[in-house]
Amino acid sequence: MAGNETIQGFLDGLASSAPTPGGGGAAAIHGAMGAALLSMVCNLTIGKKKYVEVEAELREVLAKSEALRAELTGMIADDVEAFDAVMAAYGLPKGTDDEKAARAEKIQEALKVATDVPLACCRVCRQVIDLAQVVAEKGNLNVISDAGVAVLSAHAGLRSAALNVYVNAKGLDDRAFAEARLSELEGLLGDAGPLNERIYEIVKTKVN
Amino acid sequence: MAGNETIQGFLDGLASSAPTPGGGGAAAIHGAMGAALLSMVCNLTIGKKKYVEVEAELREVLAKSEALRAELTGMIADDVEAFDAVMAAYGLPKGTDDEKAARAEKIQEALKVATDVPLACCRVCRQVIDLAQVVAEKGNLNVISDAGVAVLSAHAGLRSAALNVYVNAKGLDDRAFAEARLSELEGLLGDAGPLNERIYEIVKTKVN
Repeated sequence: MAGNETIQGFLDGLASSAPTPGGGGAAAIHGAMGAALLSMVCNLTIGKKKYVEVEAELREVLAKSEALRAELTGMIADDVEAFDAVMAAYGLPKGTDDEKAARAEKIQEALKVATDVPLACCRVCRQVIDLAQVVAEKGNLNVISDAGVAVLSAHAGLRSAALNVYVNAKGLDDRAFAEARLSELEGLLGDAGPLNERIYEIVKTKVN
Repeated sequence: MAGNETIQGFLDGLASSAPTPGGGGAAAIHGAMGAALLSMVCNLTIGKKKYVEVEAELREVLAKSEALRAELTGMIADDVEAFDAVMAAYGLPKGTDDEKAARAEKIQEALKVATDVPLACCRVCRQVIDLAQVVAEKGNLNVISDAGVAVLSAHAGLRSAALNVYVNAKGLDDRAFAEARLSELEGLLGDAGPLNERIYEIVKTKVN
């Protein structure tokens, strides 16, 4: 499980010429940091007298942000696995026509997984962005800057994972499969940019 | 050194009600992931026949991105130290007038450091963004999506650290000190948004 690696080890692996970890793992960490920061603001709001009116709502947000964080942390390893499977498929023998056909099929299978893994990351990052709006509006003012960092993290995760969806969908022969994923992706990206800016502005106004 | 912590441990600490690590550490990791991904693209471009014309330039970029990565990784711990110093100053006794004066002075000293630490992070993230443009334009096409993730990471790091500059500069009595930092910050943020979008588009066009 990639979460057991040290930060330094992960960064060294990222910087190296080894194919994994790469941008997909970084995208999952972006999202996980975003979810974790929302949990932090919730944890520092719940139980405070001044915030008793929003406590029930932030308890629900906390349960969701912790579930999303667990999903995103798992995606660090999912990305490595999906990428390695694509590389392994490209490495299959291609001496005979049968081998060529089997290899092509394995590549396509692996590319489908490698499209769906970052798309799942996009989906979860988008949920983190939506939760960030609640936290930015209602969280403890003393740590509200962390809600701003959370939305920036999740939005960077969404757009980072989107690049990996594009790359892998491009190689798919099954265009119906690819177009369905790209269409869902556009929906997820949709108003995420303006929403990110709106939430950042809510926070910026509070800290200035 | 915070880089020796596991990813899981860092995320758990981020999510908890413990005051550190917080958004400042996340900002430094954003920047460090950005720098690491630029190094990765350089490492996978240098030595390839097809990219011999850009090899010398990308060797220079690699030396810079690795130096920036080291700086940013160090900032994970700097942020914890600066934040803890502010909290320690607030915790000083305030029974007598002398104690009150000494405490107020220590708080101001600690806030100055806690303004300069995220500002340094902004400065380095901005340098990562500038390097990302070269890598997005000239790096190995097979891994160009990682240059896109790099710029998103560095830009999220810049804006995340900016929130911490705002928060701490707000508490400073020395307004000349604060205004000088805020003015430098505006310069760093300046065209970073449009530049981020421009670099992302360069990459998106190449992967689609």
